[in-house]
Amino acid sequence: MRTTSISLQSIYSLARDAMLNAGANQENADAVADTVMRAERDGSHSHGLFRIPGYVSSLRSGKVNGNADPKLHSRTSVVLHCDGDLGYAPLAHRRSIDTLAEAAVNNGLAALSITRTHHFAALWPETEALANQGLSAITCVSYMPNVAPFGAQKALYGTNPLSFAWPRPDASPLVFDMATAAMAMGDVQIAARDGRAVPLGTGLDANGNLTTDAAEIINGVLLPFGGYKGSHIAMMIELLAGPLVGETVSFVSRERDTSDGGPPQGGQFLLALNPEILSGGDWVAQSEKFISRLSKIDGVRLPAERRYLNRQNTGPREINNDLLEKIRGSII
Amino acid sequence: MRTTSISLQSIYSLARDAMLNAGANQENADAVADTVMRAERDGSHSHGLFRIPGYVSSLRSGKVNGNADPKLHSRTSVVLHCDGDLGYAPLAHRRSIDTLAEAAVNNGLAALSITRTHHFAALWPETEALANQGLSAITCVSYMPNVAPFGAQKALYGTNPLSFAWPRPDASPLVFDMATAAMAMGDVQIAARDGRAVPLGTGLDANGNLTTDAAEIINGVLLPFGGYKGSHIAMMIELLAGPLVGETVSFVSRERDTSDGGPPQGGQFLLALNPEILSGGDWVAQSEKFISRLSKIDGVRLPAERRYLNRQNTGPREINNDLLEKIRGSII
Repeated sequence: MRTTSISLQSIYSLARDAMLNAGANQENADAVADTVMRAERDGSHSHGLFRIPGYVSSLRSGKVNGNADPKLHSRTSVVLHCDGDLGYAPLAHRRSIDTLAEAAVNNGLAALSITRTHHFAALWPETEALANQGLSAITCVSYMPNVAPFGAQKALYGTNPLSFAWPRPDASPLVFDMATAAMAMGDVQIAARDGRAVPLGTGLDANGNLTTDAAEIINGVLLPFGGYKGSHIAMMIELLAGPLVGETVSFVSRERDTSDGGPPQGGQFLLALNPEILSGGDWVAQSEKFISRLSKIDGVRLPAERRYLNRQNTGPREINNDLLEKIRGSII
Repeated sequence: MRTTSISLQSIYSLARDAMLNAGANQENADAVADTVMRAERDGSHSHGLFRIPGYVSSLRSGKVNGNADPKLHSRTSVVLHCDGDLGYAPLAHRRSIDTLAEAAVNNGLAALSITRTHHFAALWPETEALANQGLSAITCVSYMPNVAPFGAQKALYGTNPLSFAWPRPDASPLVFDMATAAMAMGDVQIAARDGRAVPLGTGLDANGNLTTDAAEIINGVLLPFGGYKGSHIAMMIELLAGPLVGETVSFVSRERDTSDGGPPQGGQFLLALNPEILSGGDWVAQSEKFISRLSKIDGVRLPAERRYLNRQNTGPREINNDLLEKIRGSII
């Protein structure tokens, strides 16, 4: 795989220009480019420039609104709703997260329902932002149905990622962000592109058989992580990121999708919890004792540790040449 | 394994008498006996009479307060706190769940922190009760450390169960309740008692090796379900059911425990979400369409389906003779 070294600033500019060129306005292009740059910075390649062709496709097809003007309003003092105006999610986040945080800081907890949005990124930017304001956060989205419920051979669930963050007064938040599929579709796609095998249990081929061939799984179906228990979590996310927030579940999202290569319309559920109020004020000593113990156990690595380490490197990143050519070719 | 047929009413009386005899007052004995009877009724044997010797031990040792008088108060309009007064959890639930439901119905969501409680039962009674009031619910507790984080051989997490419920206007709620250990400790204990092997991956023996021998795992350590992803969920539960609500994590709970065979002191986190408010009012059609599709897929069984089926049988249940003798022997 041949690559080229590119600075983080150039990654940002490349992403922004691709968005602008495909019809997005400055504010929308900016929000997406920032998300893409931060993914590359943290080493989340499957959410970085790799996504640009999809972002561009759905702007070009007109499915996604590049001039989206997301609107936030309060349903109660602790329930916010953001109508994404059919744009990409990052601008909706920029206009909502601080208000969500404020409601949780004041009341102990608060939720944000996002509808009519197209989410094509990692979830940790949202939970990390809330944790940086002293809150614990949970968020999830559903997606296209490409994961079979446990016991089945037919897709019903999206890869349905879940992210959780926990605030730490004197350290970066503890954050995980994981697909409830055994492997995220983006990673299966990258493995297929690079000709790498994936672990048995990742998915089934078109005939319902287990396979390690990533390309066969793209034509077949992914499996949930962790058998029936992981399948329960995926099911929960369908309900939280869909009906709970006033949006659709994965299979309905696909039915109305145009298959232009970009993300379907869907919803997002965000929950912010204020440990200061829920605990009565006595939480830091307990959680720090726990995280300290966890981090010292042989064989354990804290989630997000690798991302934070990557983040310290402000130098250029290695980007796949074919991908670069494709993105640059789209900016004409 | 020899068993005796016992009516549900007799199961209830047996549990209540064992509690009364061990020093609990009527109200506390009643709440626990009802929980035990409902577990047997639904076929959750590991949370039924099987638990009575543990319940009794901790009353006798004085660790658990059989005359607990749990007190509920509001920290904000959407954050409730219940001080369990060192009693068993069911009475705290009886005094809290309806107020939690009311706060979520009115405000869109609400949370309940329970501290200084001893939880020794399944979690579905709490989430099902909230779902019966039209709410989606999530709850979790941590426990003694007997699960190794992914990659480790040393226990840090409890079996840390998680329950989720989703309301259905014309059907019983969709509910799951699962340990985040590969297998709940109660089930491993029952397998050890009955000499049954457990699946590879359930846990490690005292030397850190995988084994199918349940007794060896009791002397060793359980593993989380689903590798590193399940391990993340177990970690999240430590933080939510501990520091978030003002209680301790599993390993601290053990440090202060008396090892009398009953459950340690700990916390519980309950969250109630009102889909009517979060969705803006349009959720039933979407969620019912999803659940209907899910239930029709070959190989899929809805969670709680088996429990609801067991519940329809109002006849006697088969109870292990040794267990019966042990419980009856304790009531003198």
